[in-house]
Amino acid sequence: MTTPVKGYAAHSPTGRLGLFAFDRRSPRADDVVIEILYCGVCHSDLHNVRNDWGNAQYPMVPGHEIIGRVIDVGPEVTRFKAGDRVGVGCLVDSCRHCGACGKGWEQYCENGATYTYNGTDPVDGTRTQGGYSEKVVVAEHFVLKVPDALDLAGAAPLLCAGITLYSPLRHWGVQPGSRVAIVGLGGLGHMGLKLAKAMGAEVTLFSRSPGKEADARRLGADRIVISTAPAQMAGVAGQFDLIVDTVPYAHDVNPYVPTLATGGTMVMVGYLGPLEGFNSGPLVFSRRALAGSLIGGIAETQEMLDFCGQHGITSDIEVVRIQDINEAYERLLNADVKYRFVIDMASLKDEVRA
Amino acid sequence: MTTPVKGYAAHSPTGRLGLFAFDRRSPRADDVVIEILYCGVCHSDLHNVRNDWGNAQYPMVPGHEIIGRVIDVGPEVTRFKAGDRVGVGCLVDSCRHCGACGKGWEQYCENGATYTYNGTDPVDGTRTQGGYSEKVVVAEHFVLKVPDALDLAGAAPLLCAGITLYSPLRHWGVQPGSRVAIVGLGGLGHMGLKLAKAMGAEVTLFSRSPGKEADARRLGADRIVISTAPAQMAGVAGQFDLIVDTVPYAHDVNPYVPTLATGGTMVMVGYLGPLEGFNSGPLVFSRRALAGSLIGGIAETQEMLDFCGQHGITSDIEVVRIQDINEAYERLLNADVKYRFVIDMASLKDEVRA
Repeated sequence: MTTPVKGYAAHSPTGRLGLFAFDRRSPRADDVVIEILYCGVCHSDLHNVRNDWGNAQYPMVPGHEIIGRVIDVGPEVTRFKAGDRVGVGCLVDSCRHCGACGKGWEQYCENGATYTYNGTDPVDGTRTQGGYSEKVVVAEHFVLKVPDALDLAGAAPLLCAGITLYSPLRHWGVQPGSRVAIVGLGGLGHMGLKLAKAMGAEVTLFSRSPGKEADARRLGADRIVISTAPAQMAGVAGQFDLIVDTVPYAHDVNPYVPTLATGGTMVMVGYLGPLEGFNSGPLVFSRRALAGSLIGGIAETQEMLDFCGQHGITSDIEVVRIQDINEAYERLLNADVKYRFVIDMASLKDEVRA
Repeated sequence: MTTPVKGYAAHSPTGRLGLFAFDRRSPRADDVVIEILYCGVCHSDLHNVRNDWGNAQYPMVPGHEIIGRVIDVGPEVTRFKAGDRVGVGCLVDSCRHCGACGKGWEQYCENGATYTYNGTDPVDGTRTQGGYSEKVVVAEHFVLKVPDALDLAGAAPLLCAGITLYSPLRHWGVQPGSRVAIVGLGGLGHMGLKLAKAMGAEVTLFSRSPGKEADARRLGADRIVISTAPAQMAGVAGQFDLIVDTVPYAHDVNPYVPTLATGGTMVMVGYLGPLEGFNSGPLVFSRRALAGSLIGGIAETQEMLDFCGQHGITSDIEVVRIQDINEAYERLLNADVKYRFVIDMASLKDEVRA
């Protein structure tokens, strides 16, 4: 049995998003039914809709930064009840028994985690559809509690942008006094500045644009280094314990590596693909590493939300109506947002009435 | 005041090594004077002599896998006396006060370690000259004790090849049960098999050549995977906690990365330079890292020698006379040695007499 819901979907790689009616499953015993209030717009929504990664299936309802309110629960659900403020991120299931899942690393599930949209439900084989919609039905294990202190709209991007930065900062041991640099000031980067600062780090922003200084400082940066200025780059040689590179397109990472301290790590979280001419020399001469990191596990995501609740951290957002999503995508392509679009899903009610 | 000594030196990038007379400094207060008995031939000797790294100064006496006997000590030397069996590796000095030196990471000295040859002595500004010679004068801190259990000739390659593998195996926490792979079976690789096995790891050799199986197993490999066979590579996907890549020339590292487990690290120790087309995707999707590592610190090198003494580990060597060094270099270029040339420096006495 299923329930009909409305959302916005892409129907082809070149097409625009438009109103789409589809079915959500009836809750299983461990499911939580969530009325979606807000959904963040992630850069990867754009990649997925445009089939940049070659695995798109249409129609596709994007959205994996979901904030909502519980409206129903299955009989085995113990941690949630109707009325609770909850979140759903990039994952709605995983095998739950492999080594990675056992460690709480559901994002690295050895049998393949189930993504919130453009994925396949492991129980019934249906396609998963995301948060640009009225409601969603998700297994309790993958539902997060949203602290009361957090603004609901501003909390939405924490579910992907927030955890994508929080996980490497924690995994590589950032603590008071750590020297952390963030490459790029966008949806991911601005969360990196806020989170690293709240962890007590000395925070540097690498940016190509001199105009971002005031904003970067407001968000938590102690210093801005213009990455295209060789003298500025030389001035921070050997400085950083950790660099998190949030740039989502192909770029030369070689200039950043020598700014790592001995034993330092540069973590890629934005770009997937070939790093042309990447040089092993600066790794060898100071035992540095280039690593990657993907979102975070479920327990770690809850820890991140609680941390944000304690420190009053949400994303800087621009709220849009679902009817304006295609224009928002155009602006996202031009990096014209500070720093994350969040869809007010109440706007979808206008469509339902129409 | 100085002492005249004889050695073999290169006089140009294209030239061959030949007899060369030069001066060694008289011992300073903390110096140890060492009669050289054996010196290993490292692949980097070839790179340096041919000026592959662009910093060669001639005449150059190579050699940084030095085994000898103490013949004199300065008045402040406390740990050594005449007659002791000692070793000198790639480093003969460092600033001794930076953060790296303070941690025992002299090889990553922030002010630049002093290499055993083709370096500049920080006290008197003279050029350092290496172990293809009668004797060497080295500050006590950089002199290692060679355990009695070790054959002196076979111990020579431990000073570079041995520590180059020991350091990353220890730094990345190899212990009983760790799944370790070594890429390439040469001077470095064969030490990797021996050391990883002695640490209790499950050891795999990646090789392009099927003919190396018997030798690899004798040296400590539990398994050989032919890296050019896609089915064999697919069969070890996600398997290794640590891969140490010892290949000294440009090669495609992308096929190895997916054989790392989640959170695994691949460490480059042989090749310095561009990794064309290196892909960040497999790093991101399983929180993997590509790192580099350079020899080891002095305390760690002593620990390695003691470990080798306890486990009866030396290098598999072919002993040559100094007069045959140019032929040995030719054979090294063709990977025609199992697995390390070591020069018996007694052969130099024939030159001195002549």
